[in-house]
Amino acid sequence: MPQLRKDPLSERWVIFAEGREERPNEFERVERRRPDARCPFCAGHEADTPPQLARYGRVDGTDGEGGAGWLVRVVPNKYPALLAHGRAEPDAHGLYVACDAVGAHEVIVESPRHVSSLTQLTPAEVQWLMVAYTDRLRALPRVSGCKYALAFKNVGPEAGASIEHAHSQIVGTTMVPSEVARELTASRRLLRQLRQCFFCRVVEDELTHGARLAAISDRFVAVCPYASRMPYEVWVLPREHASHFEQQEPEALEELAGFLQRVIARLEARHPQLAYNYFLHTAPFDTARLRHYHWHIEIFPRLTTTAGFEWGAGYYINPVPPEQAAANLRW
Amino acid sequence: MPQLRKDPLSERWVIFAEGREERPNEFERVERRRPDARCPFCAGHEADTPPQLARYGRVDGTDGEGGAGWLVRVVPNKYPALLAHGRAEPDAHGLYVACDAVGAHEVIVESPRHVSSLTQLTPAEVQWLMVAYTDRLRALPRVSGCKYALAFKNVGPEAGASIEHAHSQIVGTTMVPSEVARELTASRRLLRQLRQCFFCRVVEDELTHGARLAAISDRFVAVCPYASRMPYEVWVLPREHASHFEQQEPEALEELAGFLQRVIARLEARHPQLAYNYFLHTAPFDTARLRHYHWHIEIFPRLTTTAGFEWGAGYYINPVPPEQAAANLRW
Repeated sequence: MPQLRKDPLSERWVIFAEGREERPNEFERVERRRPDARCPFCAGHEADTPPQLARYGRVDGTDGEGGAGWLVRVVPNKYPALLAHGRAEPDAHGLYVACDAVGAHEVIVESPRHVSSLTQLTPAEVQWLMVAYTDRLRALPRVSGCKYALAFKNVGPEAGASIEHAHSQIVGTTMVPSEVARELTASRRLLRQLRQCFFCRVVEDELTHGARLAAISDRFVAVCPYASRMPYEVWVLPREHASHFEQQEPEALEELAGFLQRVIARLEARHPQLAYNYFLHTAPFDTARLRHYHWHIEIFPRLTTTAGFEWGAGYYINPVPPEQAAANLRW
Repeated sequence: MPQLRKDPLSERWVIFAEGREERPNEFERVERRRPDARCPFCAGHEADTPPQLARYGRVDGTDGEGGAGWLVRVVPNKYPALLAHGRAEPDAHGLYVACDAVGAHEVIVESPRHVSSLTQLTPAEVQWLMVAYTDRLRALPRVSGCKYALAFKNVGPEAGASIEHAHSQIVGTTMVPSEVARELTASRRLLRQLRQCFFCRVVEDELTHGARLAAISDRFVAVCPYASRMPYEVWVLPREHASHFEQQEPEALEELAGFLQRVIARLEARHPQLAYNYFLHTAPFDTARLRHYHWHIEIFPRLTTTAGFEWGAGYYINPVPPEQAAANLRW
């Protein structure tokens, strides 16, 4: 059973998931997948993954390359970091606190074709991907004990991807993850201070002066944050206040699909073969509409490596100011 | 002028150091140094670095390969992330807080020979390295405004090393870095709770049951922490309580040199060509002996890559429990 342990000093949680050692590429981060290896995510290889949780595409099942019958599919992760059943209440063991790592770990295969970046997906595939995110965020609260789900994407070995074929992951957890909890606390404080949602204020400021605005559409903006940790870090936010991603309307999701693809295409134009992560920060399941929180997608290009200083100090060193990154990405 | 900016949401500090883009290997993390490139740290190339701040070795200058006249030398970083002069007081700019990135950024060249790991150093070289750490920690408070200095080491491109030749870095800062501040706060709370220094208690526990003890000497232990973020993460701590590294006696430093080399040799025996970071956490300059804080060196093997889940959740996934790592490393 994977275990969740808390560090008494930093209060950081660590998931110990021993089975994951067996997954492809663990401890072999640099090499790309061997061209002769069989890809478990390609059309026709559906039996290589655990049984499908959801599929997206035309209802008659005629779409997908070679009539795969799907454009996007959701499956349980074969090497899950968390398991569906166990004891989620933390117990103290002397100095330490631990519990079973209970939750959900799913994979969203983004295309039946063997492509690696979001920019290689068809518009329909990206749109179904956005729909799949909202569907899983709606479905996961029904999974025993889940309070939160983090949707994220790893592209390239430097970004921790162990499989090249374009895919996202969703991890459902019984606690609100610390990064999200930290944002929730800080944004509540900032609402009192600014008398306005912090994120709305950032959007407003950037739409006014534009120094860190990287792209814009009717409903969305892409901003390089003032204190970007990584060169070319970009956050995508809705222009209208919205705390819960899963409450976005279908037309907004359709627009977001094209917008996200455009932003990543600009990053890749600047840095070919870019390795990157992105992750979706949204409000916890058990909250109603929050005035202080605003969902957003953080895109993290992996252009620099965190080294001893970053790990030891908790400070980041970024050689590219966000104003310069935004100017280079601007529409 | 490099700038230090604070993210309003996470309260993380980021150093924007534009000049560092020019340093070798920025944005080219995977490739090792080309064999034909001239190494600025080798004996005979002393003029390739800024003027030396300190040198260590026999006083007659006869040691070092080819009579280099030094075994270990300290120089300013050619691509500093912080500069010696500027305005260190943070100013608010609308939503944001920033100041000049004031401090010190030094490099310690660990050998006149072109070697890459600490295990390839001679005993005298590692001993002088430990002396150099204490000397710089004593010297840096005299540098304008420095409250803290972080000594760290990056080995291998996956660990962010841009130069292969064995070296450490020291960054002096005008604020206590957030990771250290967090440990100071938590350890003060833990002292009240345990009526004992948390680190002393960990040492005591591990010496009693040994489940996570990786190595031991007269004065030091190496422990794989209970909630290790990384596979084979190892912390080196003095067995006797000590908050300030720079107050260690010469005999303790000599023992530490050999002990640290032994621990890293075991890690490398397990994982040849290991990329790793280590960093020294010690009490801030302006504190007297602290009952709650205990200096330690955190060794961070870079065997896994932080991916979207780690960045987005602030949780870590570690496939190797510290009990297994310690058993594999044990003396």
